[in-house]
Amino acid sequence: MNFASDNVTGASPEIIAAIAAANHGPAMPYGADALTRRLEQRLAELFEHEVAVFPVATGTAANSLALACVAPVYGAIYCHEEAHIATDECGAPEFFTGGAKLVTCPGEHGKLTPEILAPRLAGAGVVHNVQPAAISITEETEAGTVYGPAEIAALSALARRHGLALHMDGARFANAVASLGCAAADVTWRAGVDALSFGATKNGALAAEAVVFFDPKRAASFGYRRKRAGHLLSKQRFVAAQLEAYLTNDLWLRNARHANAMAAQLGSGLAALPGARLLHPVEGNEVFVELGERAIERLAAAGFGFYRWGDAPVLRLVTAFDTAPESVASFLRVAREALLVGTATP
Amino acid sequence: MNFASDNVTGASPEIIAAIAAANHGPAMPYGADALTRRLEQRLAELFEHEVAVFPVATGTAANSLALACVAPVYGAIYCHEEAHIATDECGAPEFFTGGAKLVTCPGEHGKLTPEILAPRLAGAGVVHNVQPAAISITEETEAGTVYGPAEIAALSALARRHGLALHMDGARFANAVASLGCAAADVTWRAGVDALSFGATKNGALAAEAVVFFDPKRAASFGYRRKRAGHLLSKQRFVAAQLEAYLTNDLWLRNARHANAMAAQLGSGLAALPGARLLHPVEGNEVFVELGERAIERLAAAGFGFYRWGDAPVLRLVTAFDTAPESVASFLRVAREALLVGTATP
Amino acid sequence: MNFASDNVTGASPEIIAAIAAANHGPAMPYGADALTRRLEQRLAELFEHEVAVFPVATGTAANSLALACVAPVYGAIYCHEEAHIATDECGAPEFFTGGAKLVTCPGEHGKLTPEILAPRLAGAGVVHNVQPAAISITEETEAGTVYGPAEIAALSALARRHGLALHMDGARFANAVASLGCAAADVTWRAGVDALSFGATKNGALAAEAVVFFDPKRAASFGYRRKRAGHLLSKQRFVAAQLEAYLTNDLWLRNARHANAMAAQLGSGLAALPGARLLHPVEGNEVFVELGERAIERLAAAGFGFYRWGDAPVLRLVTAFDTAPESVASFLRVAREALLVGTATP
Amino acid sequence: MNFASDNVTGASPEIIAAIAAANHGPAMPYGADALTRRLEQRLAELFEHEVAVFPVATGTAANSLALACVAPVYGAIYCHEEAHIATDECGAPEFFTGGAKLVTCPGEHGKLTPEILAPRLAGAGVVHNVQPAAISITEETEAGTVYGPAEIAALSALARRHGLALHMDGARFANAVASLGCAAADVTWRAGVDALSFGATKNGALAAEAVVFFDPKRAASFGYRRKRAGHLLSKQRFVAAQLEAYLTNDLWLRNARHANAMAAQLGSGLAALPGARLLHPVEGNEVFVELGERAIERLAAAGFGFYRWGDAPVLRLVTAFDTAPESVASFLRVAREALLVGTATP
Repeated sequence: MNFASDNVTGASPEIIAAIAAANHGPAMPYGADALTRRLEQRLAELFEHEVAVFPVATGTAANSLALACVAPVYGAIYCHEEAHIATDECGAPEFFTGGAKLVTCPGEHGKLTPEILAPRLAGAGVVHNVQPAAISITEETEAGTVYGPAEIAALSALARRHGLALHMDGARFANAVASLGCAAADVTWRAGVDALSFGATKNGALAAEAVVFFDPKRAASFGYRRKRAGHLLSKQRFVAAQLEAYLTNDLWLRNARHANAMAAQLGSGLAALPGARLLHPVEGNEVFVELGERAIERLAAAGFGFYRWGDAPVLRLVTAFDTAPESVASFLRVAREALLVGTATP
Repeated sequence: MNFASDNVTGASPEIIAAIAAANHGPAMPYGADALTRRLEQRLAELFEHEVAVFPVATGTAANSLALACVAPVYGAIYCHEEAHIATDECGAPEFFTGGAKLVTCPGEHGKLTPEILAPRLAGAGVVHNVQPAAISITEETEAGTVYGPAEIAALSALARRHGLALHMDGARFANAVASLGCAAADVTWRAGVDALSFGATKNGALAAEAVVFFDPKRAASFGYRRKRAGHLLSKQRFVAAQLEAYLTNDLWLRNARHANAMAAQLGSGLAALPGARLLHPVEGNEVFVELGERAIERLAAAGFGFYRWGDAPVLRLVTAFDTAPESVASFLRVAREALLVGTATP
Repeated sequence: MNFASDNVTGASPEIIAAIAAANHGPAMPYGADALTRRLEQRLAELFEHEVAVFPVATGTAANSLALACVAPVYGAIYCHEEAHIATDECGAPEFFTGGAKLVTCPGEHGKLTPEILAPRLAGAGVVHNVQPAAISITEETEAGTVYGPAEIAALSALARRHGLALHMDGARFANAVASLGCAAADVTWRAGVDALSFGATKNGALAAEAVVFFDPKRAASFGYRRKRAGHLLSKQRFVAAQLEAYLTNDLWLRNARHANAMAAQLGSGLAALPGARLLHPVEGNEVFVELGERAIERLAAAGFGFYRWGDAPVLRLVTAFDTAPESVASFLRVAREALLVGTATP
Repeated sequence: MNFASDNVTGASPEIIAAIAAANHGPAMPYGADALTRRLEQRLAELFEHEVAVFPVATGTAANSLALACVAPVYGAIYCHEEAHIATDECGAPEFFTGGAKLVTCPGEHGKLTPEILAPRLAGAGVVHNVQPAAISITEETEAGTVYGPAEIAALSALARRHGLALHMDGARFANAVASLGCAAADVTWRAGVDALSFGATKNGALAAEAVVFFDPKRAASFGYRRKRAGHLLSKQRFVAAQLEAYLTNDLWLRNARHANAMAAQLGSGLAALPGARLLHPVEGNEVFVELGERAIERLAAAGFGFYRWGDAPVLRLVTAFDTAPESVASFLRVAREALLVGTATP
């Protein structure tokens, strides 16, 4: 019944089991354990590419550490104006980079395009201006949409022309890949992504993310930055265990497919209601819907959890690996009743 | 057989069980869950005092976030020259504080004293100098010794006179309290400690520490600093669950008592050997012993894990909640043989 | 002939003379000299209010140090999207504040209003968001307009309601005061300004600015921040001497009045030309004019210095204390000829 | 009569004259002026080497900006425990580098040696440790002594072996070169120095230092760092003018030779007195002398300015370009009287 976020969930049973299974005997700390080594190999296979992998416990840490590796203290990082790094991390990118500037850009349905970005990439070589350093995109976006490989490739082409790195905040990367039905490589290095925050927490893990660099040279400073940020866990095997379980038997994709299917049901159900309007295509596990105050009140009164989005009567509804189909059906039923009453009332 | 560190261990079964038990249904993220609220109450009871509690995943984060709350960017933080914050955190305190300076001081057996500190507390009010802001001590110290309440009170009296905060790095706080047989309050607020990094990871948790402030006003900026450092876990209930289990039925003290007992056996056994010399009193779960190169080689060859300490033939041996008495006996046996052979050889 | 900026100028002869006059005998360094003390008194008289005064050598330093005193590392500083601090200081505010975020806002003719700001002052108390800390306005604005006392008071009322500080970047403060014909107090503390970057460099000094706090308590950390930023000059008497001369016999206002008069002539002259369009009211010493490419080329060919503003055929023309009336007349003559030819040509 | 510091002085008349002379007509701001260009050429000639030159207004800025170019945020910078950067800049290096750590080392007469440094260069490649990045030495040292070319070369050889940069704080560089009678190149790039803070302020300028890189590639980020630190002066010609005058007709060496000669007189005069003891060889323009409390009181009562050095009855006496021989003679006379009375008393 809780559509507030995919982090109100607990963890997949497989993840809990993996933690318990990792709890046998001593292991070298700080990532010098066998599980962590194995994880790097697993991710190399998944991405079909050499990778440098750094497990951390939060998405904010993953994003900010990755950005700190690719942007100087006087750098400009271009992102969407609704990007999590810009709006929901209390200035973490500024902290980790030592003061680089996020340049926020508009973009329909949460997406950046070369047309939007190109005129903003100014000031290179001018000491009065922060220096263009990186583009950061979110996959799935903060609007619940998904960049296709060609869209990402167009952005990376622009990035290459200007000498910028391309970072991907993949807090919901699994939902995007599940939505596209493509290989993980197709929306990352094949499309020109340099560094990926590979999220697992929102999709079934307790607290596990991995920063993945496709060119290990870019990651030269990561280890030191992670340590001095307090993000090198001493018993790192327990993070690696989560990520290994997440990748085993496609748990990551199975979880994401379920969440996406629930969002699709929710979205199409709402779209069919009079007085409801979807703000963005439903491509992953998020639904943004304008509903009217009365319906919102009824839904809240019925015990559903969700966030209002901005000042308009708009809800963000997030589904997850454990969303019950009954919850979706129930939500749609309450919404329908509220809206029909709403329109029937003179 | 691994005496390298208390973080080569896994977790207490009770901790794993608590994580599994916390995995039921949705919970509000970012610490707005029932488990986190309960934890604050539990710690208030343990410390017999109002507290502000902030769970985090690493000791480095705990220390640095606490210090950032009590020292300005131009502050001086006084600590022992072997303090973990000074030697093993890759500059984390400097990063989190925005550039405050650690002023390192000598001190026998890992301890600071007012006599050592007083002449160093210079420069207050002089713009050319960093400004005295805090003293940080480690309990149990990096030398395996333990400050008694009176020693801490003497330091806090000095701190008060100079307007400094007193921080305690309690990565092995449980071992210290178990060693002293006192109340947790006796070596914290009653002795004048302002902020404590209350460690659990080294003593049976997976990844769980709590920063405890005894004057919540000092913690006003903590929440923002934690978030922007990427240390606010979305599914924080799983950290709170670890800490709750850690406190339940005195698991924290039981684990620490065992570790201390193992260290005491190891220490007294080594002290009785010809050619072995303890560098510090064994008061917690660490033994520092000078052994001679031949014995060190034999122990390594026998498969024991440990770190050499500095350039001399000195070992640091750390026991933990799961150290087997047989491992201690076996270590002593190999050491004895090596040393006796050593002395027997003409 | 150079309208590029008011910092292409040299210094007023009075300023040079004051530097030479200050060069007699020893003086205590780092601001402990008689000239610096006298300066604080002079500014208190000018502003009719208790002040804390900190001379520095650049406007960027003045702005950033002032902001660092009023915004925490996780703070949000609201400013116009064309504010110098946002566009022309290479991230200095982020550097000095330790990562605070500049939230840039639109606003006609370079001005912020309560209506623009109020809906953006969100997130107070939410750990995911940077915390509203300060509003920074520029007087005279980057569009060459001037805030009146009532406009500033409206902004400070909003600031007070939200617990924000109000900072004024007064790089061209003299031009604003000369334009308004008011007291310096009227557009500063009487209108609710907390901290002022009182600029002199653009208006006749070599390198001299003063940060002025109207509530000295807010400046408690300034001295340390200035020193660690390398902005405490050892022979500070030579900066104080510049500022003293600047205030003596109203040099600051005389210089500004001349610059403003030149801009007024330039503006009204241009406004009368066919094919020229002023973008903003000319209230200080800057003229923004759309002219057409041909005219711009002719003016450049004639040896006039200026900056193009953005991508459109728009010039920013800045007058200064030493702008010759003949230069203005000459500029207008060339522009007129170019534009008349332009319109006459079939 | 003021021996407190060489920054209690004013400026050489030639410097004031150069400022006045630079005040003619417009000049492009921010270092794009002819004087700044000429300065780079002059310094290339002086140092007989390609250089990248960055004028700034203070020595603290020069040192910290140079260090920020050669040390990462997680770097270790090795310096003498009395180095100005460690003791007198309120944490500026930490601020500018983003938190790098100054590792302070002992050393007789203010000097580092390879023997002292080598065992401290630990931790390379270990993520728990800050990473060795640079050595910073002061020439002339804080003890008034001077490194010879061979001593510097020995340090740079060590630096090269460990991949470290070698920075020289040359606040009193002129005094050192004058003392050695060598070429400026001999104690800089020829001896392996990578970056020099070339000071002029203490030796006759108002406020003028230049950071000189002997490998311009190392300076790639300097321009941006200087701007965002507020140290790019808009009317930079006035700093360049000071430095040009400083180099013209060997003013820098003439000033330094005079200061050194005065210190030599002072030092030899004091050394001849019973009850006075020089703490360091007098090689530049500083004298450190232990005198006894009575003599110190008499000298203070006679109106001489000086600083006590530490807790013992030790004075630091600094001579300058304008120290009058009569002041030296007078100081010696008062000291002699005080000491003779002191010894005569039963």
